[in-house]
Amino acid sequence: MQSTEQPWSLPPYSPPDFSAPPLAQAPPATTTPAPADGVLPDGYHATSNHPEYLQLSPGDWQLVAKSRMDAALVLREGKVLALEPRRVRQGDLVILGRTENGEEGIYVHSTGFAPPESDGAEKFAFRTRGTRETPFSRSYDELYQLLRHDREHGYISWVLGPAVAFDKDSRYAMQGLIEHGFCHALLVGNALAVHDLEAARFGTGLGQDIYTRQLLPGGHYHHLDLINEVRRRGSIVRTLRELQLVDGIIPACESRGVPYVLAGSIRDDGPLPEVLTDSRLAQDAMRIHADRTTTVVALATQLHAIAFGNMVPSYRVLPDGKVRPVYFYVVDMSEFSVDKLVNRGSLQATAILTNVQDFLINLWHNLNGERTV
Amino acid sequence: MQSTEQPWSLPPYSPPDFSAPPLAQAPPATTTPAPADGVLPDGYHATSNHPEYLQLSPGDWQLVAKSRMDAALVLREGKVLALEPRRVRQGDLVILGRTENGEEGIYVHSTGFAPPESDGAEKFAFRTRGTRETPFSRSYDELYQLLRHDREHGYISWVLGPAVAFDKDSRYAMQGLIEHGFCHALLVGNALAVHDLEAARFGTGLGQDIYTRQLLPGGHYHHLDLINEVRRRGSIVRTLRELQLVDGIIPACESRGVPYVLAGSIRDDGPLPEVLTDSRLAQDAMRIHADRTTTVVALATQLHAIAFGNMVPSYRVLPDGKVRPVYFYVVDMSEFSVDKLVNRGSLQATAILTNVQDFLINLWHNLNGERTV
Amino acid sequence: MQSTEQPWSLPPYSPPDFSAPPLAQAPPATTTPAPADGVLPDGYHATSNHPEYLQLSPGDWQLVAKSRMDAALVLREGKVLALEPRRVRQGDLVILGRTENGEEGIYVHSTGFAPPESDGAEKFAFRTRGTRETPFSRSYDELYQLLRHDREHGYISWVLGPAVAFDKDSRYAMQGLIEHGFCHALLVGNALAVHDLEAARFGTGLGQDIYTRQLLPGGHYHHLDLINEVRRRGSIVRTLRELQLVDGIIPACESRGVPYVLAGSIRDDGPLPEVLTDSRLAQDAMRIHADRTTTVVALATQLHAIAFGNMVPSYRVLPDGKVRPVYFYVVDMSEFSVDKLVNRGSLQATAILTNVQDFLINLWHNLNGERTV
Amino acid sequence: MQSTEQPWSLPPYSPPDFSAPPLAQAPPATTTPAPADGVLPDGYHATSNHPEYLQLSPGDWQLVAKSRMDAALVLREGKVLALEPRRVRQGDLVILGRTENGEEGIYVHSTGFAPPESDGAEKFAFRTRGTRETPFSRSYDELYQLLRHDREHGYISWVLGPAVAFDKDSRYAMQGLIEHGFCHALLVGNALAVHDLEAARFGTGLGQDIYTRQLLPGGHYHHLDLINEVRRRGSIVRTLRELQLVDGIIPACESRGVPYVLAGSIRDDGPLPEVLTDSRLAQDAMRIHADRTTTVVALATQLHAIAFGNMVPSYRVLPDGKVRPVYFYVVDMSEFSVDKLVNRGSLQATAILTNVQDFLINLWHNLNGERTV
Repeated sequence: MQSTEQPWSLPPYSPPDFSAPPLAQAPPATTTPAPADGVLPDGYHATSNHPEYLQLSPGDWQLVAKSRMDAALVLREGKVLALEPRRVRQGDLVILGRTENGEEGIYVHSTGFAPPESDGAEKFAFRTRGTRETPFSRSYDELYQLLRHDREHGYISWVLGPAVAFDKDSRYAMQGLIEHGFCHALLVGNALAVHDLEAARFGTGLGQDIYTRQLLPGGHYHHLDLINEVRRRGSIVRTLRELQLVDGIIPACESRGVPYVLAGSIRDDGPLPEVLTDSRLAQDAMRIHADRTTTVVALATQLHAIAFGNMVPSYRVLPDGKVRPVYFYVVDMSEFSVDKLVNRGSLQATAILTNVQDFLINLWHNLNGERTV
Repeated sequence: MQSTEQPWSLPPYSPPDFSAPPLAQAPPATTTPAPADGVLPDGYHATSNHPEYLQLSPGDWQLVAKSRMDAALVLREGKVLALEPRRVRQGDLVILGRTENGEEGIYVHSTGFAPPESDGAEKFAFRTRGTRETPFSRSYDELYQLLRHDREHGYISWVLGPAVAFDKDSRYAMQGLIEHGFCHALLVGNALAVHDLEAARFGTGLGQDIYTRQLLPGGHYHHLDLINEVRRRGSIVRTLRELQLVDGIIPACESRGVPYVLAGSIRDDGPLPEVLTDSRLAQDAMRIHADRTTTVVALATQLHAIAFGNMVPSYRVLPDGKVRPVYFYVVDMSEFSVDKLVNRGSLQATAILTNVQDFLINLWHNLNGERTV
Repeated sequence: MQSTEQPWSLPPYSPPDFSAPPLAQAPPATTTPAPADGVLPDGYHATSNHPEYLQLSPGDWQLVAKSRMDAALVLREGKVLALEPRRVRQGDLVILGRTENGEEGIYVHSTGFAPPESDGAEKFAFRTRGTRETPFSRSYDELYQLLRHDREHGYISWVLGPAVAFDKDSRYAMQGLIEHGFCHALLVGNALAVHDLEAARFGTGLGQDIYTRQLLPGGHYHHLDLINEVRRRGSIVRTLRELQLVDGIIPACESRGVPYVLAGSIRDDGPLPEVLTDSRLAQDAMRIHADRTTTVVALATQLHAIAFGNMVPSYRVLPDGKVRPVYFYVVDMSEFSVDKLVNRGSLQATAILTNVQDFLINLWHNLNGERTV
Repeated sequence: MQSTEQPWSLPPYSPPDFSAPPLAQAPPATTTPAPADGVLPDGYHATSNHPEYLQLSPGDWQLVAKSRMDAALVLREGKVLALEPRRVRQGDLVILGRTENGEEGIYVHSTGFAPPESDGAEKFAFRTRGTRETPFSRSYDELYQLLRHDREHGYISWVLGPAVAFDKDSRYAMQGLIEHGFCHALLVGNALAVHDLEAARFGTGLGQDIYTRQLLPGGHYHHLDLINEVRRRGSIVRTLRELQLVDGIIPACESRGVPYVLAGSIRDDGPLPEVLTDSRLAQDAMRIHADRTTTVVALATQLHAIAFGNMVPSYRVLPDGKVRPVYFYVVDMSEFSVDKLVNRGSLQATAILTNVQDFLINLWHNLNGERTV
């Protein structure tokens, strides 16, 4: 049910004009050594998720690559690193400054991808707020094009809440998307992996049949047994092989070689051996993918979506130096979840308010039939 | 994404055994004349939405046909009528009794369609409550089969909230379902009709483009202008013809001869000429369709869904005397809306928690390609 | 738990400067007769909820009094009336024009109450969207002051969803607010009145005890019996007297002489004799109060809140010609409900996201102990 | 606004009758050594949150003390321990059995606190589901009594989502509850502590004034600066002292000596030095409080509420051997959050659907004025 497609392309990026005032008169950025490991000096600068430029020496404005929200900027060996404050080491040269217009050698460029303004905002209008009643046909159509493009030319990261594995058709849809190359990294928690493997082993999720919805007698043991079986074998890979589990999300990642991060939480049962139980290690592992990501699709999880959203800036500097936008789709049932993501700084998120079951089925239906790469 | 289909059929109905005690010893039901128009006598019986039997004379148990929730049962010319209390006339013989086990000649039969019980309810289980995380694949699959069946052998009533017309693809999906025979009656309000016709005329809903989401300059006049154009012409039909409006929900109803009820509310702008502004007249018009309905699909409206839900019993007596279930699907984004419907008595409702946009697109995708009747 | 109170006063109103260009050069507004009853001429002007001025003759700018959203402006006997289009009569002189900056003699003044701008909008910020996590202490404190002020100097209209009568303490809180003069008009539906009277008669709401939550055997008859008792007696007043019902919302209105409008809907059981079943008559009755209102408090109802919100402009012209803001508080559990109100044009609404039970109890606790007027 | 209070007391506990058949004939429970650290033997038993009895030798039925959901039962030195499976050591004797009626020496007793059944469940009723429209007056009144009781005779654990610190009045209310002895342990995450300390230092939460709601210029640095200040000083206690932060939730815990657990998550900024970043260590720290808890109040957090809910059984064995219920109140805005808690096994949870801001203010208003202990 797709509209006649216009040829689609990434929007161009317009860098700032550093030769014009006031930027032409801006001073270089200044630094101070960090007083201790994981501690920033007074007046440190913290990044937004917009493109930010530093004037390291007169006329030398550098765009921060691999940025993220709320990072400190550190100079190491002439390179600018956007680091979580806890990763700053004593003596690191930390960029100072809290202005964003260049007066301290820092320029935040929030309009690089913006289309020319056209709205003559009226004093009165209906429907100024996005809700479940917002039309989403175009968001879907754009997402289809984006995923087709980034399958080959980008890096698509999926952030999944545990419920994605609870329904037969949507679980298969996600499996299909992975198998057809639409997923380059998977960011999830212990629960998603456990539910997915329980479905592969028993056809249930927390003891409930993922198709018939029947609560099987003793079914809650499925959850615990699955965990115990993996722990006994020591790894997911060995479990998949020995129990011949072949369908679902985690098996698809394994068979396609798609990396996944299992980030630990206090809700975890088990956990599975691969879970990174230290939240700092889990953040570091997620950040590796954030640094490569060009498109994020986050489904039905506040915890992981906000966590990953904090790590993903609105732009990516490609190997050839070109700058492109990073897209962030968030799919959830409630306006509150989406607003919360924005309130934590993920300003560029595109929301689709629906059940992730239908969202995945829609995607799969529209992207399927594409050539398998 | 449909499962291998088992042959599907309506569940059989098991009537009560009136020859066995205690029903064999039950007395006939009693009546008293209504004291005034629209007023019931003390001790009147009110219906549930389950099948109810009255023993009119010894051994003559009659199943109430065309029942509804909270109706009074009136004997007129030997027939039992389930009437809204306001429609009872002075002197009407009103059935008395507030028990449901036969002791007053009234038997409420809530298990006629029930499959044999099998659950040995455990003391502990996960996932005992239906939420957005409940797997819906099977609900969809069953609904596809049901709609195919009832397209030819039943009466499918759609109850639509206004947002259904706000998105291009879902509006076309609903149009397609109507054009392909999957809708026998449409129960909506003024707003749905206005939004749908605004989309046909201007491509917008309340001034917002239903595909691009752009808020057009002066767009809020689209809504008012559309209303004014219909009011000037005196009817929707004439407006469709003169303005050559051909796409959308209301045009599809007109071209297919599908009846629709536009029930008025205090939120209405205009309203359109066809709107029944008196809520009693609107209820009466809706009841006509309730009496014929075998399947209800209610999308994104509490007001109309609860109103129609109150009118639709859980069963239908077919012309040949057979009894079949009436299905009631409710699609909404929030657990609260579904719970509220149940709390107002629509106990048989099957909930699908999702955005109606995706729901309709799913339906259309799966039912499309069927032969056009 | 109230903060140290600053003296509170209504914000001043700054009218436009009509002597300065471009308004000084604006032409007078033009009119055309309405072609038929309830039909507007092409190019008619529709009001927003902001203050709007018409230049009737050169230099004679008149502020539209008793305005509302989406009204037509009609000149009758030299006066400007803001009428619902259906109330326009053939031949009425209807103001034309779709601009808002004076070029057609119409000026929409959306900044009359605005404080001087101070925000130097930053490119990045957290928490730009209002949600349930927004701090509401100040909204409460301001509302307390506003209600104390408008009890004597304004007109406070309450719009209540049916659930307000379901809880013992909140029902008593609402009763107390009415008895202490904080309510000048009540806008509700049949259900609120029925639930409230059921609570007065049986201590239940739809058969559920409003304190213990117990579902009483046969309790669903309470609802129907209460309706029948009122219908038998022909009026609420007579029922209160004969059944000696003294507590609750409707009894408090009756004993204080507070007018209430019972607007009909298709969900209504009964309805009670006082219900205005024709939505146009109900709208007309509500509009009478909208024209007087200075503060609206709308609790847990989309239907009535949006309907009344459409009728209430953001300002009121007082008898002495002064212009003051009209406050609109909306209390609901979901961001969606609040966003929807705004999307239908009630731009000035202040949202408090909470359960109306607690909201009312908070209000009563803070306003209680005031002198009884 | 409290009802006339009946004297309140804990409900009595009725143990099973092990002398009657079939329990009198039940065999002793069996065990098998765990095959490896953190791995359970086939057929292991997993606990529910109900009281469970093991027959260790004929006639010797022992109630599992300090239980939790989904624990393995291990015999160490004649004592039964309910351990998370990851804490089981190789060779531990693990109880086997998946039945709950005694036939394997395990008896799950789910009705020990149940009042005598009285409901003659009718075939039709309104309002069978709990929602925001459920009356909560009684839940509040019971909670007031419970908190007063458990302040002296129990152990009250609070589980707080981060939003609790965002509003001035509710933050003060929580502070007051802690200072007056109504909190014995606080289970939160890094964010709650950071927001609370930001409010103490700057009067903001994520840069937004917690009273005026103003977004302060550069306010997002408040969040980061607060974290940096604590990290520089190495501890919260030293920061409170050196910066003279005295108001709020964390300062109240420190001044009263109330222990708090800061459990890490992947969303954390910083984190603060006291945060347990390893989820297993955080779980272990939380479990210590779970083992003592008699009442839980969980506000506006799914992650922490579900995590702690999994650790808290429905009963507590007191030092004198008496058995009492453990109460679990969950306060949230959405039915989904509450249903999800139940779907993860916290069957005994009492829901209050409201904004935690109002909930806390209600509590404080009603419990304040009590003697300070």
